Amino acid sequence: MDSIQLHHLLGKMTREEKIGQMVQLAGEFYKEEDSENTGPMHEMNLSPEKMSTIGSVLGVSGAQTLIDIQKEHLAKSRLGIPLLFMADVIHGYRTIFPIPLGIASTWDPNLAEESAILSAKEAAVSGLHVTFAPMVDLVRDARWGRVMESTGEDPYLNQLYARAFVRGYQGKDLINNKMSVAACIKHFAGYGAPIAGREYNTVELSERTLREMYLPAYQAGIDEGSKLVMTAFNSLDGVPATANKPLMRDILRKEFGFQGVLISDWASVGEMISHGIAADLKQAARLALKAGVDIEMMTGGYLNHLHDLIEEGEISESLLDEAVWRILTLKNELGLFEDPYRGANSKEEKTIVFSLKHREKARKIAEESMVLLKNEKQVLPLDIQQKIALFVPEEQSKDVLGAWSWKGQQSESVSVYEGLLQHVSKESIVLKTYSPLKNENHKDWLTEVKNVDVIIIVGGESSYMSGEGASRSNLKLPAEQIQLIKNLRTTSKPIHLILFNGRPLDLTDISQDVDSMIEAWFPGTEAGSAVANLLFGQKNPSGKLTMSFPRTVGQVPLYYNQDSTGRPLTPYNQDDKYLSRYLDVENSPLFPFGFGLSYTEFKYSPMQVTVAESKEEVRIEVTITNNGNLSGAEIVQLYIRDKVGEVVRPVKELKRFKKIFLEPGQSAEVVFQLQKQDFKYVHQDLSVSVEAGEFDVMIGSNSEELEIETIYLDFKKK
Amino acid sequence: MDSIQLHHLLGKMTREEKIGQMVQLAGEFYKEEDSENTGPMHEMNLSPEKMSTIGSVLGVSGAQTLIDIQKEHLAKSRLGIPLLFMADVIHGYRTIFPIPLGIASTWDPNLAEESAILSAKEAAVSGLHVTFAPMVDLVRDARWGRVMESTGEDPYLNQLYARAFVRGYQGKDLINNKMSVAACIKHFAGYGAPIAGREYNTVELSERTLREMYLPAYQAGIDEGSKLVMTAFNSLDGVPATANKPLMRDILRKEFGFQGVLISDWASVGEMISHGIAADLKQAARLALKAGVDIEMMTGGYLNHLHDLIEEGEISESLLDEAVWRILTLKNELGLFEDPYRGANSKEEKTIVFSLKHREKARKIAEESMVLLKNEKQVLPLDIQQKIALFVPEEQSKDVLGAWSWKGQQSESVSVYEGLLQHVSKESIVLKTYSPLKNENHKDWLTEVKNVDVIIIVGGESSYMSGEGASRSNLKLPAEQIQLIKNLRTTSKPIHLILFNGRPLDLTDISQDVDSMIEAWFPGTEAGSAVANLLFGQKNPSGKLTMSFPRTVGQVPLYYNQDSTGRPLTPYNQDDKYLSRYLDVENSPLFPFGFGLSYTEFKYSPMQVTVAESKEEVRIEVTITNNGNLSGAEIVQLYIRDKVGEVVRPVKELKRFKKIFLEPGQSAEVVFQLQKQDFKYVHQDLSVSVEAGEFDVMIGSNSEELEIETIYLDFKKK
Repeated sequence: MDSIQLHHLLGKMTREEKIGQMVQLAGEFYKEEDSENTGPMHEMNLSPEKMSTIGSVLGVSGAQTLIDIQKEHLAKSRLGIPLLFMADVIHGYRTIFPIPLGIASTWDPNLAEESAILSAKEAAVSGLHVTFAPMVDLVRDARWGRVMESTGEDPYLNQLYARAFVRGYQGKDLINNKMSVAACIKHFAGYGAPIAGREYNTVELSERTLREMYLPAYQAGIDEGSKLVMTAFNSLDGVPATANKPLMRDILRKEFGFQGVLISDWASVGEMISHGIAADLKQAARLALKAGVDIEMMTGGYLNHLHDLIEEGEISESLLDEAVWRILTLKNELGLFEDPYRGANSKEEKTIVFSLKHREKARKIAEESMVLLKNEKQVLPLDIQQKIALFVPEEQSKDVLGAWSWKGQQSESVSVYEGLLQHVSKESIVLKTYSPLKNENHKDWLTEVKNVDVIIIVGGESSYMSGEGASRSNLKLPAEQIQLIKNLRTTSKPIHLILFNGRPLDLTDISQDVDSMIEAWFPGTEAGSAVANLLFGQKNPSGKLTMSFPRTVGQVPLYYNQDSTGRPLTPYNQDDKYLSRYLDVENSPLFPFGFGLSYTEFKYSPMQVTVAESKEEVRIEVTITNNGNLSGAEIVQLYIRDKVGEVVRPVKELKRFKKIFLEPGQSAEVVFQLQKQDFKYVHQDLSVSVEAGEFDVMIGSNSEELEIETIYLDFKKK
Repeated sequence: MDSIQLHHLLGKMTREEKIGQMVQLAGEFYKEEDSENTGPMHEMNLSPEKMSTIGSVLGVSGAQTLIDIQKEHLAKSRLGIPLLFMADVIHGYRTIFPIPLGIASTWDPNLAEESAILSAKEAAVSGLHVTFAPMVDLVRDARWGRVMESTGEDPYLNQLYARAFVRGYQGKDLINNKMSVAACIKHFAGYGAPIAGREYNTVELSERTLREMYLPAYQAGIDEGSKLVMTAFNSLDGVPATANKPLMRDILRKEFGFQGVLISDWASVGEMISHGIAADLKQAARLALKAGVDIEMMTGGYLNHLHDLIEEGEISESLLDEAVWRILTLKNELGLFEDPYRGANSKEEKTIVFSLKHREKARKIAEESMVLLKNEKQVLPLDIQQKIALFVPEEQSKDVLGAWSWKGQQSESVSVYEGLLQHVSKESIVLKTYSPLKNENHKDWLTEVKNVDVIIIVGGESSYMSGEGASRSNLKLPAEQIQLIKNLRTTSKPIHLILFNGRPLDLTDISQDVDSMIEAWFPGTEAGSAVANLLFGQKNPSGKLTMSFPRTVGQVPLYYNQDSTGRPLTPYNQDDKYLSRYLDVENSPLFPFGFGLSYTEFKYSPMQVTVAESKEEVRIEVTITNNGNLSGAEIVQLYIRDKVGEVVRPVKELKRFKKIFLEPGQSAEVVFQLQKQDFKYVHQDLSVSVEAGEFDVMIGSNSEELEIETIYLDFKKK
């Protein structure tokens, strides 16, 4: 449909039809046999007539189901406006990839993009048009359960991943590539910074920090063309995001130039009442529309009150037109007016969804996402001849998908036990279930492990323990796991700990009691295959953390790119009390941002730093050599520090990185170029600029092991 | 000196003499015999000539010493400008009162004022002119060591205490009352909110929150007439407070109308280099002066660079005149031009300092400051006939003064053991030292306590563990104390725990293992006397917390006046996961703000709420009856909640309280009146106003046990 036709369509719509487009209903409204008279419709005050005007549906899928719903809807819709089908396809549709925090640990945006391409394909062929992904919220507090859905604590990485996911979901040609879905950048803005890591809690940020650290990833996703943006649950500067006009109208729309659809999060319009900024749903609807929310998800504010609000002169009908125009535009960009069923295809669905090719990719990404945290005396990889005692939390131990795995089936996923069996026989493995831990078992186990060579413990969190609504005040492993490790430590056997979890954990208690640790995150469908490939050395671990692992929850929020203080703790003043420090724990994390080990050893040459004659650019070269006996990948990281700013600058900022693959003995030269743009930052007046001065450039294998050189740059203009 | 004379004096000063006034040196510069050629003077690049221009001295006292220093200085000062003597008199000079967080727990600003009057008297007679107190920083994170120096998490209480301390230190007639000292409100601004509770760390606040929660106490102290304000160490909105021009010039000077002296904190001008906003001390000096800092403490930026900065046209000499005018004015307001020795009097010093009268008041305030956290089955007060086992951390156990007790002497203070001996004989007490805890002792002790009736354990923190530079990541009792309590719990004896500490602790581990707990804070000189009077019922505990005690460090920052969320946890939705909550701990603190028990029982009548006909005022009446057998004091608390605001409002805000003393059987009617002013808050545009609507009014004995009534108020104008 061309723009004129679309305008024409809008012109024909009644006010009620417009309002309907701005309402999103859950799939249950469409699945119930006699939906006209039952629960949800009744609660929302939905008449069959109103149902025929609704614009989008949430959380239902399956090609035939969606074709049927669409067909029925079009039969009732006066103007034949198709429904939009949206859902949470977060890290895979049915083929589940690692959780986003795991994908981030690959330090490979291409893999993020590939995961999104395949997820989009499975979702689109199952009839979906929009996914509520990617979440690009910056996170600094491991207590928050939803850090699993983030790509970490660094704004630069978050930007790259935001772009990669959007590219992957949407592809280059949304209208013609029916195997793509529209992306939805979320949650605008600052949702990742709830006070005390408590889900949905207030967010407290200065606008400068918001702009410098939090907004860039949203903006990157929008610049990449994300068709939708979702509002956040939290309040920011005292105003819930869904009602936050300066945030939505000024920053999102005007400054970022976002033209797409702004959708509320689940019930977040209605929740303005709990937030205490609206007395009732009508007032909430008015605030949301004024702030620029186009679609209301799951509460009936728009549906039941927009009409009256216009009648009463509280809002202008032009706000409706603006919102509906964006919604119709999205439908048009997806080609729904020409093909309302788009990718939905029951036949292809069977071959595409959960295909071998997709699973193979899921395994590969899972392997790249895992982070080797410890490998004392090179106890890994395992010798395939060794006898193994495998301790797993449950009989099946298929809880490997993680939160937000809607269509993922645990039964279809590969457990660690199954993964090991891809390499060794059943006879080589003594399998033990340790949860719930019974003390009497311990003695038996200690006897039984006498006959094995190594102990593998699968631990971490259940998937229930991270994701939305899963804040934890305690970041340690569950007590029974700590107990198990301590007990098994009394044997002389090497202990290998495989961690499935959705957040940085406090591993202080047990890190000395195990010989190796693999942070596997929730790896998805191919969990066990990936873990086994790493354990047996089929694949050399290369993942690196994108979120700091604290020594104790008492350190959080903890992140590498913290601001300089006036009294920094350094290696030279450790005995001084009057520093920015704790009495009882080091400032540093247990495992820093950018950290991850390999089975091989990478040697960094001294770096060559060359400042251009213009003094506005710098070139950094370093040669990395694989000095070990195994091939492997290294993630080379470049950080800077602006030594004197108009405002306080972070002690380190990631500016570039490169993942290189090296055969044993092989070397590679890595060259980074930094331009003026890379040194800019947000000033007191919120402008973005830079001044001449000294900068540290730092290169190394993680945010703490770095070679440093100080340079002087002289930018001609700010 | 009149204003004309003062102007005349300023006019006669050379630039170097002006700069000298803006420099504060530590006392060591004056105490060294041959100071001209040694250490400190050399480092600061101080010539004898420059020494003669210096304006103030820090951290030295004693009447004769200061008289001598002043005399010698005046002999050298070309214009005869006397020195100002300043010091940290925080909760007492030599007679040590409870730490400010303890004083706050009295909920009695009059007692705060009385403590300040006596502290000022001791300080003034010892020759001091200015105290660096009160600290009025609002605090929400118990990890920060300096919460001990604050009055807690509530802006209303903090305002009252800020005023009370200023009134107490300065009195009504600074110039004529030589037994007063000038007060210094600190630390402007936001120092109490370091990220992750880590001392000197970055502060991250929106301006709205800063204005609503943090600034009111500073403003109250300034409105009360505080002669000085001290800058904070932290950065705020990216700029260290000491260089923060919008904060100092716009808010402090213009908005609050502060005319007094703004002094940097210890070396905070020089620390701009570590903060990374100044390349060198010269640049730091320029930033500090431009921001409006009149006196630089302990770094030589002003001393060594102001001259050149003026010569180079970087700053104007008028900024110097402005600063020096304020400093001269302060000296004049203290009457130093007429009497440069002011209160300093070696003879009176001997009778006033640490007098019996002062100690008596210290004991009374200490008694009122202590908070009875638990009293299972009314095990307290103790029967004087009982045999007691007393476990103390050290032989002397005189570590009862707390941090910031400069002139306080542990040897002069009363230990709990000594306090008990004021009531019972040595024979009734088995005294045991438990630190360092030796396991072999435990068995002995278990045998020995068989013959006693009750166990008293003195625990908590050493004074080293709170105060400046004493952030803790772990809020639990030291491990040996937990062990001791658990071991002693195996006996059937009642255990009474007396806590000396400077912050809210995580008492979850042990609160079930003791029968009573008294939060004694660091009570000061008369610690043991006060504790014993409470234990034996000479005095009925009445203190209430002004800072929430968390269940675990994983909950912090935790405070009662948190903002409403969109998904609140209530008594009716405890099973729902998708709420603002944790998976593993309740949202509530272990002991809430406003909490404290009594030996008697207070009954609240149903409250009577009367909205005035104007709908702009409300009157709340409640009758409290002492239903127990002991006389005692109750602190009746009134909170409100604005149910719908333009911005999200706190779930509760303390608006009034009253401390009433009742004999057994006696009743008292408490009446509170709230006016429009009490409902105002900071809006999105930072204006302060209020709208008509519903408000909850809540009355009760702490922030969680409240009777609630909803009223409607209709304010005519915002």
